[in-house]
Amino acid sequence: MIFLFTDFGSADLYVGQVKAVLQERAPRVPVIGLLHDAPPFNVKAGAHLLAALAARIPPGSVTLAVVDPGVGGRREPVAVVADGRWFVGPDNGLISVAAARAKKCEAFSIGWRPKELSASFHGRDLFAPVAAMFARGDRKTPKLKKAALAVSFGANDLGEVIYVDHFGNLVTGLRAGKVPRDRGLVINGRAVRYARVFSEVKQGEAFWYENSIGLAEIAANSASAAGKLGVTIGTPVGVTG
Amino acid sequence: MIFLFTDFGSADLYVGQVKAVLQERAPRVPVIGLLHDAPPFNVKAGAHLLAALAARIPPGSVTLAVVDPGVGGRREPVAVVADGRWFVGPDNGLISVAAARAKKCEAFSIGWRPKELSASFHGRDLFAPVAAMFARGDRKTPKLKKAALAVSFGANDLGEVIYVDHFGNLVTGLRAGKVPRDRGLVINGRAVRYARVFSEVKQGEAFWYENSIGLAEIAANSASAAGKLGVTIGTPVGVTG
Amino acid sequence: MIFLFTDFGSADLYVGQVKAVLQERAPRVPVIGLLHDAPPFNVKAGAHLLAALAARIPPGSVTLAVVDPGVGGRREPVAVVADGRWFVGPDNGLISVAAARAKKCEAFSIGWRPKELSASFHGRDLFAPVAAMFARGDRKTPKLKKAALAVSFGANDLGEVIYVDHFGNLVTGLRAGKVPRDRGLVINGRAVRYARVFSEVKQGEAFWYENSIGLAEIAANSASAAGKLGVTIGTPVGVTG
Repeated sequence: MIFLFTDFGSADLYVGQVKAVLQERAPRVPVIGLLHDAPPFNVKAGAHLLAALAARIPPGSVTLAVVDPGVGGRREPVAVVADGRWFVGPDNGLISVAAARAKKCEAFSIGWRPKELSASFHGRDLFAPVAAMFARGDRKTPKLKKAALAVSFGANDLGEVIYVDHFGNLVTGLRAGKVPRDRGLVINGRAVRYARVFSEVKQGEAFWYENSIGLAEIAANSASAAGKLGVTIGTPVGVTG
Repeated sequence: MIFLFTDFGSADLYVGQVKAVLQERAPRVPVIGLLHDAPPFNVKAGAHLLAALAARIPPGSVTLAVVDPGVGGRREPVAVVADGRWFVGPDNGLISVAAARAKKCEAFSIGWRPKELSASFHGRDLFAPVAAMFARGDRKTPKLKKAALAVSFGANDLGEVIYVDHFGNLVTGLRAGKVPRDRGLVINGRAVRYARVFSEVKQGEAFWYENSIGLAEIAANSASAAGKLGVTIGTPVGVTG
Repeated sequence: MIFLFTDFGSADLYVGQVKAVLQERAPRVPVIGLLHDAPPFNVKAGAHLLAALAARIPPGSVTLAVVDPGVGGRREPVAVVADGRWFVGPDNGLISVAAARAKKCEAFSIGWRPKELSASFHGRDLFAPVAAMFARGDRKTPKLKKAALAVSFGANDLGEVIYVDHFGNLVTGLRAGKVPRDRGLVINGRAVRYARVFSEVKQGEAFWYENSIGLAEIAANSASAAGKLGVTIGTPVGVTG
């Protein structure tokens, strides 16, 4: 299976072009879009989101991971195999949190280059062909060489809102298992308490819970927490003392 | 074929996780997203939209239907087979309009539970595995038991706007076959007349017509009826006397 | 492969219905959404966008192309084979720019009609079945007859913004190869200079570059050019003297 994790926009004209390349180069390999609306230009938020999602995708799969504001500049492409899952994308930190949290991890530079490489769409021209090679089990054509990641954000949690979903739920970069249930989360000067699930709080009330990918998430029952609390991606989130 | 009808958001990170489960458990079964932006938290509007769409999907298919504000609470999972189409989702009324309008229908409780069940994402953890079982023809593992639906909205039409599409067209819960063509629809104190199709009215003019899933829909030629009429989901719609 | 190019909206309930028809009539043929958020009602902008995308899709493929404000009126369906790529859609100009730029091109009227044809969704009822016929290699059932296109916008460039992506990048209808690199593009009274790629300009600075489908595009480094320059689809774009 090939997974896609990008900021290309699910409504835009980029994902289809990537899928066309994958279809031509790795026909019959299922391609699944995990997320195409990762916060644009925000590599760090994307890195934490990807790490949480990655823990739940099947080993043996390949993930094309692209949030790449530096495309066409000096950053290099990189391949990572972390606990049996392959990742390919820009070496700008995006894959680094998943890599740092893996029990077993190797990173590689990629020597292969396409005949035609656009300045702005390496997702289509470089990363998709390499992902197709991995998905077909071809480890030779990419010309891998063991290397260290150029940029790493490390394994630690990120005390920020890293994603806002269309319900208005606020995904944080804090792993829920590391926040005691009797503590609240503090955001924009307000503390919200823990609840197991939406239906345990009053309609419209804000709370935090362990979301389905293991992160602490601030939500409101049948309402938008983003609207209620006036926050966006990057707003700091703390834990009550 | 497996169809998906949810309020997970086509741009969000939920649909891909559901597809990954389906791919692992029912490889080679095509999965088609009917709608991922059903009105959030609005089970009744979703139920009427699903019923209209369901009449047009092929018998023998399986539809995973999830609009589930009560997830993690006391509502139970349910499976329904209505005129040869399987549905699986929460027993909160979402499937009930399709069920009530079917010529032949049976409902079942589901005894199977996954080893790990998140509090907030039964679409991924419970409904997707069960949908995969149905798609593979496995009627045993889900541990079905005949049961009545806990919540039913019945077969009647709903005189409300149940969906607004990105053109600004207003889908109502009224089946078009039940509204005489010489009657207008009344919305926000304004009456709009019937026309067969967009090109029969002046540019910008509002009208109602029978949409492609058999519902009465209020639209405007090359313009947004939602913008012109200032309505949203839930706005009442009546028929002129 | 079947490609979809439409203004149906990636988040709306139309694309899934088209895919269901294709799946039933051409199982095992991969279906790839190139774009479902082509500018609504704007056939000319769509025609230029499709022509740029079409040059990069594999010959032998079939593209269902539907931006169709006149659906249900007098416009006819049309099939075009341009440099080995099939297109099917309304004969309203949408396919005409791709056709006019092809080295080799033939257009055909389509005699086949479905048993049930909704007034507003020919994409599902007529164009999808015909696209499936082409994808299966069936050139007989569609009842093709050589014909000229009823509407053609010609091969020339369009000095307008034809698409705004979710980053706020402004795609123009000017092919980048035809604009000298030492010229700026003028939009809303402001001139922006050429740069090869985002990382060559300062954060927030606007510039133009050759985008990944060969068009001149106005962008800003890690910012929204649409927001900075206050433009929308249809805003005229010129070249400095």
